[in-house]
Amino acid sequence: MSEHAPPYQIESHDPDQDPLTVPLLFQQQRSINSTSQVADVCPFESLDYDSVSLVGFFNNLAVENIAGVKFVVTSNMMLSRRYGMAFLVFSVSNLVLTLFAAILTAFISPAATGSGIPEVKAYLNGVDAPHIFSPRTLMVKIVGSISAVSSSLLVGKAGPMVHIGSCIASLFGQGGSRRYGLTWKWLRFFKNDRDRRDLVTCGSAAGIAAAFRAPVGGVVFALEEMSSWWKSALLWRAFFTTAVVAIIHLALIDVCYSGKCGLFGKGGLIMFDAYSASVSYHIADVSSVFVLGVIGGILGSLYNFLLTKVIRVYNFIYEKGIIYQIFIACIISICTSCLLFGLPWLASCQPCPSDAPEACPTIGRSGNYKRFHCPPGHYNDLASLIFNTNDDAVKNIFSKNTAAEFHLSTMLVFFVTCFIPSIFSYGIVAPVGLFVPAIVTGASYGRFIAILLGSHTNLGHGLYAILGAASFLGGSMRMTVALCVIILELTNNLLLLPLIMMVLLVSKTVADAFNGNIYDLIMKVKGFPYLETHAEPYMRQLTVADVASGPLQLFHGIEKIGNIVHILKTTRHHGFPVIDASPGSESPVLCGLILRAHLIALLKKKAFLSTPIRLGVDAFRHFSADDFAKKGLGNVDKIEDRIN
Amino acid sequence: MSEHAPPYQIESHDPDQDPLTVPLLFQQQRSINSTSQVADVCPFESLDYDSVSLVGFFNNLAVENIAGVKFVVTSNMMLSRRYGMAFLVFSVSNLVLTLFAAILTAFISPAATGSGIPEVKAYLNGVDAPHIFSPRTLMVKIVGSISAVSSSLLVGKAGPMVHIGSCIASLFGQGGSRRYGLTWKWLRFFKNDRDRRDLVTCGSAAGIAAAFRAPVGGVVFALEEMSSWWKSALLWRAFFTTAVVAIIHLALIDVCYSGKCGLFGKGGLIMFDAYSASVSYHIADVSSVFVLGVIGGILGSLYNFLLTKVIRVYNFIYEKGIIYQIFIACIISICTSCLLFGLPWLASCQPCPSDAPEACPTIGRSGNYKRFHCPPGHYNDLASLIFNTNDDAVKNIFSKNTAAEFHLSTMLVFFVTCFIPSIFSYGIVAPVGLFVPAIVTGASYGRFIAILLGSHTNLGHGLYAILGAASFLGGSMRMTVALCVIILELTNNLLLLPLIMMVLLVSKTVADAFNGNIYDLIMKVKGFPYLETHAEPYMRQLTVADVASGPLQLFHGIEKIGNIVHILKTTRHHGFPVIDASPGSESPVLCGLILRAHLIALLKKKAFLSTPIRLGVDAFRHFSADDFAKKGLGNVDKIEDRIN
Repeated sequence: MSEHAPPYQIESHDPDQDPLTVPLLFQQQRSINSTSQVADVCPFESLDYDSVSLVGFFNNLAVENIAGVKFVVTSNMMLSRRYGMAFLVFSVSNLVLTLFAAILTAFISPAATGSGIPEVKAYLNGVDAPHIFSPRTLMVKIVGSISAVSSSLLVGKAGPMVHIGSCIASLFGQGGSRRYGLTWKWLRFFKNDRDRRDLVTCGSAAGIAAAFRAPVGGVVFALEEMSSWWKSALLWRAFFTTAVVAIIHLALIDVCYSGKCGLFGKGGLIMFDAYSASVSYHIADVSSVFVLGVIGGILGSLYNFLLTKVIRVYNFIYEKGIIYQIFIACIISICTSCLLFGLPWLASCQPCPSDAPEACPTIGRSGNYKRFHCPPGHYNDLASLIFNTNDDAVKNIFSKNTAAEFHLSTMLVFFVTCFIPSIFSYGIVAPVGLFVPAIVTGASYGRFIAILLGSHTNLGHGLYAILGAASFLGGSMRMTVALCVIILELTNNLLLLPLIMMVLLVSKTVADAFNGNIYDLIMKVKGFPYLETHAEPYMRQLTVADVASGPLQLFHGIEKIGNIVHILKTTRHHGFPVIDASPGSESPVLCGLILRAHLIALLKKKAFLSTPIRLGVDAFRHFSADDFAKKGLGNVDKIEDRIN
Repeated sequence: MSEHAPPYQIESHDPDQDPLTVPLLFQQQRSINSTSQVADVCPFESLDYDSVSLVGFFNNLAVENIAGVKFVVTSNMMLSRRYGMAFLVFSVSNLVLTLFAAILTAFISPAATGSGIPEVKAYLNGVDAPHIFSPRTLMVKIVGSISAVSSSLLVGKAGPMVHIGSCIASLFGQGGSRRYGLTWKWLRFFKNDRDRRDLVTCGSAAGIAAAFRAPVGGVVFALEEMSSWWKSALLWRAFFTTAVVAIIHLALIDVCYSGKCGLFGKGGLIMFDAYSASVSYHIADVSSVFVLGVIGGILGSLYNFLLTKVIRVYNFIYEKGIIYQIFIACIISICTSCLLFGLPWLASCQPCPSDAPEACPTIGRSGNYKRFHCPPGHYNDLASLIFNTNDDAVKNIFSKNTAAEFHLSTMLVFFVTCFIPSIFSYGIVAPVGLFVPAIVTGASYGRFIAILLGSHTNLGHGLYAILGAASFLGGSMRMTVALCVIILELTNNLLLLPLIMMVLLVSKTVADAFNGNIYDLIMKVKGFPYLETHAEPYMRQLTVADVASGPLQLFHGIEKIGNIVHILKTTRHHGFPVIDASPGSESPVLCGLILRAHLIALLKKKAFLSTPIRLGVDAFRHFSADDFAKKGLGNVDKIEDRIN
């Protein structure tokens, strides 16, 4: 296990040019065959690749060259100094990126913390938490999630992308942002709660569609996980939204066809194409897949349990001040850097297989056989998983015909390296998601089981990894149809469908016995109330008095302006019952509830008379629906502004 | 076009044995390489192949052999006599099958007519039409749809399979069938409206999953098209149902691996596998696909318009008596037979291409290059589409690298042959569906456009056929996500996804400008009321009096048994308002509505007292929920049975 690399002379893998003499940028450029120097060294070029491009870059640096200075390595001391320098660059750049994301989030928009899926889900259930859709949150979410994902932390991009999609949709739903001067007249038709909710649902579908290039998966995700309320028209509107995402994806891939957009250009419409893997299984294989589902369910519920505990502890610490929030982010970043850089040393170097499906060993930003500290012609299997973007790590684990590539111990170490750090990374004050870490963790678990089973199964190791990812996602997120469609769209292998369905159902059923869906648990920790479709039995006994705050203030059908202004100023109630005592009746009649916002709108329009007479339906003619349209965030009319 | 085949000497395609001397059964057996004689000649062997296996069988017969008698064909007269004989066998067997289905449906269960999807959709909306889920309907639907689909009519199997799934689910929901002695005690927990509705939704999902081997498509279909009401738990229950369907499919395919189940054994999990077709398209291709969607939408809405008109005319004729219903079925069958047998004569014989992807020419039950009346080494392209099962016809149209196989005129003739007869076939008194005819029609339209465009497009002809099928389905059925998922699961080509999404949205939008969804139109013709999620504005003005039938009969909180029995006997109301005039109050209070079924249940239990006293909540203890469980069909308690 812990065989250390012997000191050796680093040799050129290209006989024409000694790598130690070639300037760094040029070398980099040659290895990934790109045309833009800036794009090559910039880790932010692609939103789509969610882990640090810097990892590959500094890995390259560590083995061969530091800052373009020519070295001839002859001693252990020199080597270790070079590795130490590489580690320093690696960990410091990670720390800077994490710090940037954390400071941005903590000081500018704390609402952008976390994945954002629980907030959007709560909004679609009727709970409009403050600032979750403000333009400021949107900006922090975009910049912060790029930064956090690039900082080698085990965090995802899907959740933030769902939140970003919902924020943009919500901006349309409030007629643009008045504060930033982004208002459009034609948007006023959507300025009501129903349209805004529909837009946010479509926005969340677009987020998943963009994150996983899974347009149908996005629609089903919005339906199954996000929305509390659904109608047929919303289904095809969400479908339209994700169709636009798919067409734009297509156009961008077309533009980037020649590879001029860095890693984005290398990907096709399918992120982890596993089609050509030969899927030949029989009913007998179903039993092992069943067991995979059971264990995946247990692991998923354990993940949920630990994650909520960690978030509670973090919240307890966070209450002490922003400095503690930043501090924790730094600690997590440093620990992750140490773990990632240190663990591959434990793995032994393997000789490159002669029938490897791709180049071996490589030192670039992606690739299945990473050299790291190994001698030429050898690769480090743990480094192949760690020194890659998360997407490429999943691709490597899903890869077919590579049964001998990964060792049992490597997969176990990598599984633990994903499971534990992703739990601790989620709670930091930065826009970070859960989806991709769960896929990586599940895939490594699946591949571990495949190696354990060895020749006892007909299914390939890559297929086990897919099923493992499905079981872990099912155990943690408890979706069925949505996860099934997303996994299909990620892997493009419909022949696996019956097994994926089974594994999802088994893991969901097993995990449901222990605790709830991860997003529901986070919502509970964050204190968002969530109303189920059916009322709880105790709710049947509730009356209005139980949920309204007192003392009761009410208005009559005809009321004095002074009285209204006084009550509006002295209370903070959002609505007031209106009662009317008609002369003939023995008891007053409840006419309904009038909202504070509507009262202020009426006062603002000076829609009152000097004589107390009862108006007919004609009175409505003086108002348009627009007068009572829902205001955007930060644009709430205050009684103090108007009546003074 | 109308080049007639010259008289020629029929030659053996196997030099070892003259086909004219080999007994028929053996020949048949050799050509499809099967082990069971009975299964070979029986056209009913596979529910999965929805058109007549007999077609291939008699095609074979026509060209080579009639009833095992040795012929040496030397003259035109002999040839035409043989073709005449073949036509007779073909049309008579079609007629017998159609007649069988029609008689079964007309005399035993008229509720089994048509696809059944509108009935199930109406049920899920709250309209429980009589007998739609009775065991008798179930049996007629199963036997009748096999018979109708085998009779060469252009009808589908998907609709009947949805109805069959729903019938079985409904039987579970009413605790089994008491009349046929199929009752189970453990089913009593589902004997209520909510569980029965959930079961029927899952049953309809299972129907689509079984018909198209599309488990996820089935769930989304049930959600988008069938159900009026949906909750998260129902989603994963439907998913569970279709997962079971998928696993059973897998097991059956495993059992039939060696081809011992006829055509079923030949199919894999993907019905029309189009994966290996090279999909390389650019944004420029999107414009032609857009036009395809527009025309598909127009054709789809025209189809809906004509179909409803034809059904109205049929309904008008059907009112005159059952004999007219049978008569129309016979006319349609004879016309279809003439059309199918006559049209291939108009197509010219083509020489077999040297690079054909499969055997050419063939005379078996499936295959892409049918010989029909052509000389050896030639094939008839129209016969390749007509003398196949519908599934194989779709497979041939979707096939890749066969751009030169079909002529423009052939595709046009085939498109019209699908479009018009499928409209006339739907209305006959037999369990027939719409889905598969719509796929065939749309596919031929798409391929026609592809041939028309020629080299102006990058996409293959087979891919155009897939998009054509999507556009026609979208134009007729107006689903989006469900159709998208079903088409993906049918063709296994996720790279086409953005184009399929676009074409579906375009065709749906265009068609929505003209008329409604085909199933909604049929529901309207059949007279099922359908309640939308939102009430129509006029409904806001309705009162109970507008929808209740008079004269009003009401009960008091304490009522005499004699009075109740009298009212139950003299009226046919399903519910009665209960009012209570408490001594102190000035006006009576409405307590609620009591159902006739519940009153009869109370009377049956003799749950009444001799003294008129008001009972407390304790009275509920004497009853279990089971006493008021919804009765199954045909088991309604009648007041006459009980009180005499």
